[in-house]
Amino acid sequence: MQSLPASVQDVIDAFARLPGIGPKSASRLAFYLLRAPDELSSTLANALLAIKSATGTCEVCFNITQAENKLCEICASSDRDESLICVVEEPLDVLALERTNAFFGRYHVLHGVLSPIEGIGPDGLKIFELMERLKTGLVKEVILATNPSMEGDATALYLHQKIQPLGIRVTRLARGLPVGGDVEYADQNTLLRALAGRQEMD
Amino acid sequence: MQSLPASVQDVIDAFARLPGIGPKSASRLAFYLLRAPDELSSTLANALLAIKSATGTCEVCFNITQAENKLCEICASSDRDESLICVVEEPLDVLALERTNAFFGRYHVLHGVLSPIEGIGPDGLKIFELMERLKTGLVKEVILATNPSMEGDATALYLHQKIQPLGIRVTRLARGLPVGGDVEYADQNTLLRALAGRQEMD
Repeated sequence: MQSLPASVQDVIDAFARLPGIGPKSASRLAFYLLRAPDELSSTLANALLAIKSATGTCEVCFNITQAENKLCEICASSDRDESLICVVEEPLDVLALERTNAFFGRYHVLHGVLSPIEGIGPDGLKIFELMERLKTGLVKEVILATNPSMEGDATALYLHQKIQPLGIRVTRLARGLPVGGDVEYADQNTLLRALAGRQEMD
Repeated sequence: MQSLPASVQDVIDAFARLPGIGPKSASRLAFYLLRAPDELSSTLANALLAIKSATGTCEVCFNITQAENKLCEICASSDRDESLICVVEEPLDVLALERTNAFFGRYHVLHGVLSPIEGIGPDGLKIFELMERLKTGLVKEVILATNPSMEGDATALYLHQKIQPLGIRVTRLARGLPVGGDVEYADQNTLLRALAGRQEMD
């Protein structure tokens, strides 16, 4: 069996460590880069070297931010509603919600979910910091936007129990059929949720 | 809408230029690297920077090789049958065939296929060099292992016509049902080929 040049094998191995990239995709990427202009691999390499050093965490919501800024763009903006906080698992979720162009409040990034199996309890998440933010009395509603998974639901339940005594409204993102989806292919739980959450036609 | 830190956006943009990685996968990879140990991004970055400089092309078969070697491992090996040449489109195809552990001849990498639409004629491929290799009289069989696509078939046909007059046996990889596939889901052309190429049960 032919062994690859070490430089190519190194790239394949490094790609294969990324999520969603198996050994075959990793080989395809490496061989694509071999044929592509040098600039393509060097651009990616330099971007990768800079990604950590140029990135920081917002002191308020724990979203990612430029390294030189203490606050992220959203926390720094006076246009965003301070009385509404959307709690998400990861910075990527902020990105997804921002793409809707329909949310004008602030965020709070937990950086994970409660997971007894992985040994992640409340102290491993930014829950203490969330509760501190809520103590200011400015917040009227907290939207729990953790994933509709077992861990996401458990985390939402935990947060609900902690926040409710403060007299703040606590909501959860709706569950139901994804837009463009098929009733026929929906799983039983999704369909149950879609039925239970059915709404009046306007 | 929130704009991302430039360092993160750079990584997303660079990943999104790779084949098979869309903007969403690119974001997922970038955010994964943000959370992962620094070593992961730096390993990938350094591997990318070295990939071109440390890699060359075999002078005989045009497979990839270590930059310091003129011949690839397969052409340099005396264990490989010189009388049998397998013609493939890309170096990645060599890798796939080597994984079978069932081919013991040599290779010839065309670095593409005939494609009138993209303006690639016989001079754009390593066809002249293949014909030179065949003139030595050592080669008894040429296996055409270009893809079973329109361009791959056209290239195989062209090569067949060029090689036949030399009195060398020319074969093509079998077409038929992929192992583990379903007759029910096979497309019409594959099924046609599978019927036409049916073989006696042992």
